[in-house]
Amino acid sequence: MKLEKLVGDRFKEKPSDCVVDSHALMIRGGYMKYVANGIYSSYTPLRRITHKIEEIIRQEMEAIDGQEVQFPVVLPGSLWEESGRYESVGKELMRFRDRNNSSLVLGMTHEEAAVHLVREYAQSYTKYPFMIYQIQTKFRDEARPRAGLIRVREFTMKDAYSFHTSQEDLETYYQRCLKAYHRIYKRVGLPEVIAVASDSGMMGGSVSHEFMLLTPIGEDSIAICPDCGYCANMEAAENILPKKSCKTSEPLALVHTPDIHTIEEVCEFLHSPKEQSCKAVVYQKNADDSYVVLFIRGDLEVNETKLTNYLKEEIHPAVITRESGLHAGYIGPYDLQINDKALILYDRSLEGAKNLSCGANQEEYHYTGLDMERELPDAEYHDFAKIQEGGICPHCGKTSITISRGIEVGNIFQLGTKYTRSMNMTYIDENGKTQYPVMGCYGIGIGRLAAAVCEAHHDEYGPIWPMSIAPWQIHLCAVRSDDAQVKVFADQLYEELLKKGVEVVYDDRTVRAGVMFSDADLLGVPLRVVVSPRNLKQNQLEVVSRDKTFSENIPAESAAERLMEILKERR
Amino acid sequence: MKLEKLVGDRFKEKPSDCVVDSHALMIRGGYMKYVANGIYSSYTPLRRITHKIEEIIRQEMEAIDGQEVQFPVVLPGSLWEESGRYESVGKELMRFRDRNNSSLVLGMTHEEAAVHLVREYAQSYTKYPFMIYQIQTKFRDEARPRAGLIRVREFTMKDAYSFHTSQEDLETYYQRCLKAYHRIYKRVGLPEVIAVASDSGMMGGSVSHEFMLLTPIGEDSIAICPDCGYCANMEAAENILPKKSCKTSEPLALVHTPDIHTIEEVCEFLHSPKEQSCKAVVYQKNADDSYVVLFIRGDLEVNETKLTNYLKEEIHPAVITRESGLHAGYIGPYDLQINDKALILYDRSLEGAKNLSCGANQEEYHYTGLDMERELPDAEYHDFAKIQEGGICPHCGKTSITISRGIEVGNIFQLGTKYTRSMNMTYIDENGKTQYPVMGCYGIGIGRLAAAVCEAHHDEYGPIWPMSIAPWQIHLCAVRSDDAQVKVFADQLYEELLKKGVEVVYDDRTVRAGVMFSDADLLGVPLRVVVSPRNLKQNQLEVVSRDKTFSENIPAESAAERLMEILKERR
Repeated sequence: MKLEKLVGDRFKEKPSDCVVDSHALMIRGGYMKYVANGIYSSYTPLRRITHKIEEIIRQEMEAIDGQEVQFPVVLPGSLWEESGRYESVGKELMRFRDRNNSSLVLGMTHEEAAVHLVREYAQSYTKYPFMIYQIQTKFRDEARPRAGLIRVREFTMKDAYSFHTSQEDLETYYQRCLKAYHRIYKRVGLPEVIAVASDSGMMGGSVSHEFMLLTPIGEDSIAICPDCGYCANMEAAENILPKKSCKTSEPLALVHTPDIHTIEEVCEFLHSPKEQSCKAVVYQKNADDSYVVLFIRGDLEVNETKLTNYLKEEIHPAVITRESGLHAGYIGPYDLQINDKALILYDRSLEGAKNLSCGANQEEYHYTGLDMERELPDAEYHDFAKIQEGGICPHCGKTSITISRGIEVGNIFQLGTKYTRSMNMTYIDENGKTQYPVMGCYGIGIGRLAAAVCEAHHDEYGPIWPMSIAPWQIHLCAVRSDDAQVKVFADQLYEELLKKGVEVVYDDRTVRAGVMFSDADLLGVPLRVVVSPRNLKQNQLEVVSRDKTFSENIPAESAAERLMEILKERR
Repeated sequence: MKLEKLVGDRFKEKPSDCVVDSHALMIRGGYMKYVANGIYSSYTPLRRITHKIEEIIRQEMEAIDGQEVQFPVVLPGSLWEESGRYESVGKELMRFRDRNNSSLVLGMTHEEAAVHLVREYAQSYTKYPFMIYQIQTKFRDEARPRAGLIRVREFTMKDAYSFHTSQEDLETYYQRCLKAYHRIYKRVGLPEVIAVASDSGMMGGSVSHEFMLLTPIGEDSIAICPDCGYCANMEAAENILPKKSCKTSEPLALVHTPDIHTIEEVCEFLHSPKEQSCKAVVYQKNADDSYVVLFIRGDLEVNETKLTNYLKEEIHPAVITRESGLHAGYIGPYDLQINDKALILYDRSLEGAKNLSCGANQEEYHYTGLDMERELPDAEYHDFAKIQEGGICPHCGKTSITISRGIEVGNIFQLGTKYTRSMNMTYIDENGKTQYPVMGCYGIGIGRLAAAVCEAHHDEYGPIWPMSIAPWQIHLCAVRSDDAQVKVFADQLYEELLKKGVEVVYDDRTVRAGVMFSDADLLGVPLRVVVSPRNLKQNQLEVVSRDKTFSENIPAESAAERLMEILKERR
């Protein structure tokens, strides 16, 4: 490909609306163009990159016995009604109607379509296990698309679905797939991606993992134990509390606390640490606006995912009205007067706690000396708290937890029988009994993975693409192509390399070397080969790698052969 | 791939809802599954076929300097408003709104997206010409999907867009693309596809071609001249009329024709041929329901595409009311009383005609002896008639036209400046003047092409896939796989062939040979290799081609080598 003919503009200035580097570089380098909120068109360099990623994924899916299929982008709403997700999924699911007023949706994930495709086929245990996958466009009507390809509305995804006759068989396959995912990340140039235990969210099922590239620009927070290797999404990480030695219990005392509302103010006023306080966090259920009052130790934060998983319904921060009986800023667990529909919950951090300060459920008053066992003997405790930096590792028990940010570049779920049950997919087992198959599902977003590679591998001048997914392997620059010798030599080398099957982008424009090199940096091709009058005078060419780890002057007369060797070494 | 593990059912019975063979065979063979009206999921065999077709198309697009890009499936309505098609295209364009009430559409073609992608890039004449293409999902909310993959609502399409600085340059590229299309059809196994001149329809532009596979199940009618090779879609074919010798003109006479309404009845009653009559065909404009009365020779039919192209607006068959002043069954061109808004048109078949019968614009009366020049001296004549079997070839002038049916398997359009003008894409030419680039666009539906290959290449037992796009190259059958010698030999051969990079589907099920062979017929793999106890006893294997043109017993000990040779010969 001649660079002169490559459609797309490259430029120096960082676009003002880009907050992450991969986004800015992929706009600056002519990789993609904004079409609408969270919707992009791809130019050729990006299309070539995503192609290579797709091919690597395809190979790894075939290696674990995956069969490529294709589901529709546009699905009938009735299929999502079968699973119950037509109702349960929020506005991210794009719903509309066709000319005959039939309800349609845009596939944002394809569990329903997968079950639909195989439920007549797989009616006997002899057909199991099997896995089907596709690489296809998906659409999620995200509220807040951001960061270029990191969070979009339309995206290409590899999604795979496996079907099994037992949980054990699913778990065995799940591990095979987890390993295949690690191979994929390694092959695209991200060996550092880690698998973290995660929350299953709207997918259902219990065990699931997210694959995370750790980076400060990530949207997710991950709890990591450097000591034992434990890692989990903050959403999923259990919060472990140190065993406290039991102190003598003081009596409950009412304290006048005028103009004091926040937990910080209370603690300062009472000269007691936040760990010795009990705070209230109030939500309302989306369904009926009834209150959910959650009490938690003052120094901890509520993990709303844990809370909604416990409630099995959606919530939002409460608007506390006068009629509710709640006194904002003075809510405490003792003697709380509230209407019947409200739900009172207690975080595990309060279990057995003594001498706590808390709201007294009347304006301008707090209690001190709250003893949970004494004052609230019937309270049940659950884990609703966010794990914290320096917290206790749920795996090894050391106080070693660190919190990092990451981009999710894939996820895998053990779905159990959620979809097969709701969509009535059954098989006859060895004993002639009707059973529901057990499912797993496995996703990777192609565009986001490309952006993640760029995020991990770039400098201020452009992306540094790994050889395995680079849009081209060699970027050939004819510096001073108006020099006949340079032009003839570079033209010949270009043709020779093409003939050998090398992917070459060839810059023979009559522009300054600086322009050439900054364009080359933006395209991020692994090897740059420079033909110039000065080099040719010495009968050699300059070869440098984009990542600056390699530089060599190679003999002009055997340039193609030497380049083939270098390519082989660096593959 | 082991056939036992291949997801999808194969069965014998023709599904009752399949009217064409390719549809029935692709359902019976486990290629695809109905999801909703005009929406299908693909199983692995079809996905493998479409992959290979896509790869062939990709190679041919690269060979004519195409650059692969990707446009979104979901496009903002505003982009289609720019071109005017948001309003002008009918219900086929799926329109809906996102969570922020922004208007979105599903791309059914991507001219707007193509212009959007390049209009900042291509502002100088030096950037031209260039071509960009994608292979992507499209959606058209068809009123009547039919015939399996022949006419669907969701489909994968290769669509390409070229940009030029002159009509001449477009025409040169258009010819290159036309040739590339012929190469594509040849490579997928349809060398018989012909290019026919066509009507541009909603795409705009003037010159366009459709690529047609002639088959009785086709939806399109094509006028072909076997003498000179002329071919055109009926919609586009000019209707040429023989020069008639001029007869003496008879006087106009009013004839009482009670209870006579149709042109057939009139001609029978008057004992005159249909060619000697003038009939009226009445439409109404969609926009304001005003009447369009078209007079045409009694033996000809109106080509509504020619009529709407002339009118540049949509029409529908008229509902003739009493108030209109029209007398249904008695409408004639002479002394026609009708309200002002009506439009009267005359087909070329009436030009210079004499002694015609026609309606007299009063109940139960017709005229004879109508002389167009005498009675309607101001009439203007245009070509509105359908070309007919046995008609005159517009190219060579012989009365040799035959009408055939065909499936459209691709189309190419010279769009001119329709999109660049409406979307304000300009460039500065060599003289510093602002110009609109000239566009071409080029489409091929992948699934329909697969179905067309199946339509052209099948027998009653299944598809006969050409080697270039077959899901696998070899179908290996281990007949009596319960025989240890057969199983060991076939297993080894399977592994050996896989290692040599051959695509093999391996049937080692313990089923009857009849079941094996009928499954093999349904999968349509070019070469079937049979390992059986009887064959092995003679130290050989049986190789037969699916199309029955080839059969050979090969030595068992060098089976893999011989198979590689046969594959090479038949590639």
